[in-house]
Amino acid sequence: MTDLIGYLAAGLTTLSFLPQALHTFRTRDVSGISLGMYALFTTGVALWVAYGALMASGPLLAANIVTLSLALAILVMKLRYGRAPRKD
Amino acid sequence: MTDLIGYLAAGLTTLSFLPQALHTFRTRDVSGISLGMYALFTTGVALWVAYGALMASGPLLAANIVTLSLALAILVMKLRYGRAPRKD
Repeated sequence: MTDLIGYLAAGLTTLSFLPQALHTFRTRDVSGISLGMYALFTTGVALWVAYGALMASGPLLAANIVTLSLALAILVMKLRYGRAPRKD
Repeated sequence: MTDLIGYLAAGLTTLSFLPQALHTFRTRDVSGISLGMYALFTTGVALWVAYGALMASGPLLAANIVTLSLALAILVMKLRYGRAPRKD
């Protein structure tokens, strides 16, 4: 039961970035997205991947590689779409 | 060294939601934020809190209670500020 709750928790927090990535991809609306959040979060998840590798933990590695891909995609879109269209 | 990376990872992914919460609070700009993401993420983090309690893990509990508070605040702001201002 405890394990089930843990796997469910991991699944939900990992997959939750999918609707955000799709929403951002479709709307290109990134003004409400915090660059600071995705800079810190992406760095943090990259460290979780390193931690999972060092601990040789399959579930930790798998969940965090998925999250890292999605968070990195959102960060790149924030940087790309967030630029002011003109300089004047 | 492995522990240090784990704690750093936990600290960054937990604290990353602070700039997003502050950004959303200041700008009230929630159109780019995915409701699906925060609905799934908040549920997932609530399950992480339950998992931390069942495992009697202090660090898991502490990190996820902070994340839950921030994610819940962003979810509430999304629901409140995201409503269309008029019905016509």
